[in-house]
Amino acid sequence: MRGMRTVQVPLGTRAYTIHIGNGLLAKLGEPCRRLKLGERCTIVTDTQVGPKYADAVLRALKMAGFVANVVTVPAGESAKSLKVLGECYDQFAMRRLERRSFVVALGGGCVGDLAGFAAASYLRGIPYVQVATTLLSQVDSSVGGKVGINLKAGKNLVGAFHQPRAVFCDLDTLATLPERELKAGLAEVVKYGVIQDAELFRRIERELDRILNRDPAVLSAIIARCCTLKAQVVTQDEFETAGLRAILNFGHTLGHGLEAVSGYREYLHGEAVSVGMVAAGWLSVRALGFPEKDAARLRALLARIGLPVSLKLAARKRDQLFDAMRLDKKVTGGELKFVLARSLGEAATGQRVADSDIQAVLNQLAADGS
Amino acid sequence: MRGMRTVQVPLGTRAYTIHIGNGLLAKLGEPCRRLKLGERCTIVTDTQVGPKYADAVLRALKMAGFVANVVTVPAGESAKSLKVLGECYDQFAMRRLERRSFVVALGGGCVGDLAGFAAASYLRGIPYVQVATTLLSQVDSSVGGKVGINLKAGKNLVGAFHQPRAVFCDLDTLATLPERELKAGLAEVVKYGVIQDAELFRRIERELDRILNRDPAVLSAIIARCCTLKAQVVTQDEFETAGLRAILNFGHTLGHGLEAVSGYREYLHGEAVSVGMVAAGWLSVRALGFPEKDAARLRALLARIGLPVSLKLAARKRDQLFDAMRLDKKVTGGELKFVLARSLGEAATGQRVADSDIQAVLNQLAADGS
Repeated sequence: MRGMRTVQVPLGTRAYTIHIGNGLLAKLGEPCRRLKLGERCTIVTDTQVGPKYADAVLRALKMAGFVANVVTVPAGESAKSLKVLGECYDQFAMRRLERRSFVVALGGGCVGDLAGFAAASYLRGIPYVQVATTLLSQVDSSVGGKVGINLKAGKNLVGAFHQPRAVFCDLDTLATLPERELKAGLAEVVKYGVIQDAELFRRIERELDRILNRDPAVLSAIIARCCTLKAQVVTQDEFETAGLRAILNFGHTLGHGLEAVSGYREYLHGEAVSVGMVAAGWLSVRALGFPEKDAARLRALLARIGLPVSLKLAARKRDQLFDAMRLDKKVTGGELKFVLARSLGEAATGQRVADSDIQAVLNQLAADGS
Repeated sequence: MRGMRTVQVPLGTRAYTIHIGNGLLAKLGEPCRRLKLGERCTIVTDTQVGPKYADAVLRALKMAGFVANVVTVPAGESAKSLKVLGECYDQFAMRRLERRSFVVALGGGCVGDLAGFAAASYLRGIPYVQVATTLLSQVDSSVGGKVGINLKAGKNLVGAFHQPRAVFCDLDTLATLPERELKAGLAEVVKYGVIQDAELFRRIERELDRILNRDPAVLSAIIARCCTLKAQVVTQDEFETAGLRAILNFGHTLGHGLEAVSGYREYLHGEAVSVGMVAAGWLSVRALGFPEKDAARLRALLARIGLPVSLKLAARKRDQLFDAMRLDKKVTGGELKFVLARSLGEAATGQRVADSDIQAVLNQLAADGS
C-alpha cells in the first residue's frame, strides 16, 4: 500500500502494531487473519461512522472468512454508558462470541473506549482491534489500552487496561471527518508537542495550513510521530503505576472537569482539553517557570486552529467545575495534582497546585471569555 | 488468635494471604493497615450479611483510622447485575474513592464477585479485600481473583481477573450460616476431593457428621486444605490461559446452565454444581473410564450431604439447559468441553463430549428425579 507506515508498541506478550495508511479498511481481513484471532467477531461502531464504513469493514472481514456482525451505538460520549455497554454485552452473547473471538472498534475515541472496555470485560477479556476513524483516536485513544466508560460523576471513572491486538489508522477516513472533529484531534497533537517534542510543536505552527487542508503526507507523518511518542510513554508505564503515563494528561484535569459539568455535550474531548491546556500553560508559568511567551504561543496556536481557549461560566457552574476536577483520577491523598510544562517539549507530573491558583486561572479564562 | 491458619497465594507482585480463624472480623483494621491500603474504603455487603456483620467490620476499620462506609446490595445472584454494579460505582464516586482506596467485599460468593468486579473496573482497578462469610466463598470464590457479574444470557459472562489483597475467612460466621448454604458450600469441598485430593474426599465421607455439626477444628482444617488446593491451581494458571485452571470447573458446565435456565433463583450455586458433578461423574465413566463405583460414591456423598443429585425438567426446560450449556465459557471453536475425572483425585480438562452423551446423562438425571 502506498505510503504505508507502521509503529510498534513493544509491550512483550501484549505487543502490537499500529498501521497508518490509505485504503486500510477494505483490507482489514488479512492482518486480522495473521493475528490468529478466532472465527467470530463483532464490529462495534456508531451512528455517524457506521453508515460510512461498516459495510466495507464487514465485507473485508467476511471475505477473509470471519463470521462477523455489526452493533451500532449512539455517536459521542453518550455511548460510553453502562446502558450501552450492557447492549454490547447482550449482542456478544447473542452472537456467541467466545474467548478467542474478537471485537472490532470502528470509530473514534468514544467507540474505541466503549468497545475496548466491552472486550476487556466480556468473558473476562477477549481480543479487540482498533480501527480509528478520527484524528483524535488515531493519535491518542486507540493506542495504549486505556478503555472505559463514564459515570454521571465523571469521565472514564470505570474501565480497564486492555491493549488492542492491532490499530488501524486509515487516512481516507480523515478526508470526510467533520472540520470540528479534525480540530479537536489537533488539540491532542499540540499536547504531544508541549509535553514531549518541541519540534512537533513548531511543525504544527509551520504547517498548520496544510494540516487543516488535510494533506495526507503531512497528516501521515504527524500521526506516526504522535503514535511513536505515545508508544514510548505507554511502554514505560503500561498500567500508570510509575506516574510516567500521567504526562499524557496535560490539559486533561480541567478538560475532564469541563466535559463533566457540561454533561459531555457542549465540548468535544479535544475542545475541552484545549481550554485545559491554556489553563495548564498558565499554571506552568506560575509553578514551574514555563516561559510566559510559550504559554502565549500555546494559546495562540490553539486559537489559530479554531479551538476554544477561554470560558464563559456562571459562578455556580464554576464551582461545579472545581468540584468535578477534584473527582478526577489525578487526585491522590485528597490533593489535586496537575501535569505541568517546564519548557516546550518537557513536562512534569504530580505537580501540586494550590486551590487559589486554580481559582485565579479560572478567573483568567473567564475574563478572556467575556 | 487461637487456631489461626494462613494459606499463601504466591502470585509475585499480586501475592496475598488467606487468613482462617475465629474473631477475624473485629480485628480487620490492623491487617488492612499493614497492607498499606489508602485511607478510604467502602464495604460492600448484602441484605442478609450486612445486618449481622457490617457494624463490626465498619467499627474495626474506623478504629484503625480508615474512612469507611457501607453499601448494601440485594442478597443472592440478583446482585450480580449491571444495575447493582452501577449503584456500587455511584457510591464509590460519591465517597470519592481514589486509586489507593479499597473495597471490602463482606459476604458470600455473590457479594465477592460483584464487589471484586466493581473494584477491578473502578478507576481501572483499585484494591479490594475479601471477607468471606459463607463456606462456599471461603473455600472457593474469594480466592483466585475471578470476579464478575451475570447477563441474562449466562452466569459470569462479564468480569475480570483481579486478585484480592487479602482474604479473611472468619469461622464464627459459619456458626450462623443457614443450613442450606453450608451444604451448598460443601459441594465445592467435595469437588476438590474429586479433582485433586482423594484423601480429602475420604475425609468428608468419614467426618461428614462433624462437618454438618460445624465442628470448628474440622471446618478450619478443611477450609485451609481447599484454599491450598485452589492456590496451587491459580498459581499455575492465573489467567486461565494454560487450560489448567479449568479443572476447577468440574460440575460447572451443567451447573452454570442449570442456574441460568432457572433464572438464578431456584438453585444455589453449590446445589447446581452438585447436580453438575453427578452428571460429570457419569460422563467420566463413559469417556475416561472413571470407576462406576466412584461415580456412585460421589452421588451418594452429595445425597448424604442433602444436596440435589437429580433433575425434574420439562422437555422445553431441558432444551433450554442444553442451549445454556453451549453458551458457557467452556465452549471453544463451537465445541462443548467438559472437565472429567479419571479417578478420585485426578481430573482432565477439555474433554469433548458428544451431544448424544449429554442428552443421555440429562435423561438419567431426569429418570432419577421422577
